[in-house]
Amino acid sequence: MSNFNSLAVEQMERRYRATFINSLLGFKYVTLVGTINEAGVTNLALFNSVFHLGANPPLLGMVVRPVRPENDTFNNIKATGQYTLNNVLPYFYKQAHQASAAYPSGVSEFEACGLTPHYEEDFKPPFVAEATIKLAMQLREIMPMQVNGTTIVIGEIMNIIMDDALIAADGYVDQMEAGTISVSGLDSYFTAQPLGRLPYAKP
Amino acid sequence: MSNFNSLAVEQMERRYRATFINSLLGFKYVTLVGTINEAGVTNLALFNSVFHLGANPPLLGMVVRPVRPENDTFNNIKATGQYTLNNVLPYFYKQAHQASAAYPSGVSEFEACGLTPHYEEDFKPPFVAEATIKLAMQLREIMPMQVNGTTIVIGEIMNIIMDDALIAADGYVDQMEAGTISVSGLDSYFTAQPLGRLPYAKP
Repeated sequence: MSNFNSLAVEQMERRYRATFINSLLGFKYVTLVGTINEAGVTNLALFNSVFHLGANPPLLGMVVRPVRPENDTFNNIKATGQYTLNNVLPYFYKQAHQASAAYPSGVSEFEACGLTPHYEEDFKPPFVAEATIKLAMQLREIMPMQVNGTTIVIGEIMNIIMDDALIAADGYVDQMEAGTISVSGLDSYFTAQPLGRLPYAKP
Repeated sequence: MSNFNSLAVEQMERRYRATFINSLLGFKYVTLVGTINEAGVTNLALFNSVFHLGANPPLLGMVVRPVRPENDTFNNIKATGQYTLNNVLPYFYKQAHQASAAYPSGVSEFEACGLTPHYEEDFKPPFVAEATIKLAMQLREIMPMQVNGTTIVIGEIMNIIMDDALIAADGYVDQMEAGTISVSGLDSYFTAQPLGRLPYAKP
């Protein structure tokens, strides 16, 4: 067993440290964030830091890194108040990863990565047609984090587009059946194997 | 394909909605949070909403649900400023899940669930001996969320205890090799199968 203290972490080379710290947390939800600007140009970005904030109302948070002026995703969310979250499946995970590349502002990753935009009535941003669970999000709060210059974006789930058959009698959504994959670190993708579903724990 | 709009979600039965919304996000990091109070009573709780906030400094956030006065984890973190995060492995996932039960304040889940406390010099809270990746955390910020009464706790990774052999040449931590499991929803546990690690994406 080794100990890596904060001094050791601080002294790591920048990219090594990013890889190391990002891969400490195990397997995480990975999602494609779809947005659109006021001129109608779409954008797609890959996020691995979306988290559950609450079920009632249904709220999700996500971390946006220190914002460059040309961050399309963040600018589009601020301008329209809307975005989509789309799960990633094995057959298009390479296209999804490609959406993490730093394309120039104004280039739509849908076309660049070979993914298909899908639109719903009364909602501006595009969903990813290939995703089996599509969430329509309404911006609720933007929280600048003084501690490191990131921003937490809080949104409410306004609409969920998925096959009924994925939902069990108690409301549980079967992510295996949906084909959802997870990410470890910034670039390593995994499917899941069931270990077990356990009853509500009581003392 | 079905659409579930926000009215449909609002009208769901309370527990059904919690199960449904919690299981929308795919496979998530699940961790045991170890704390200790000023009288030396230890506590262990299961969290599935820890997220990466930044690599430099290494910061993690986690969502604490609306705080009852007797929430040991939150009270202990506020009192000592310290906590531990410990990954979960298949051979003790049932004990880990049991730590999510509402034990009376003052009962240590280590004993109640059959897990082993492990201590490091100059750090008060217990780690889980059975975990293969142990993080020592220092409280940096407590953020009450007006939007739904939850609290986001921000902490800095001060120390990482793990086997060197888990770390690749570029800093990537091999969570498969570590035996880490993930959770879907509140109670469904999974191991991972590798799909592929991809190179840094460029336009």
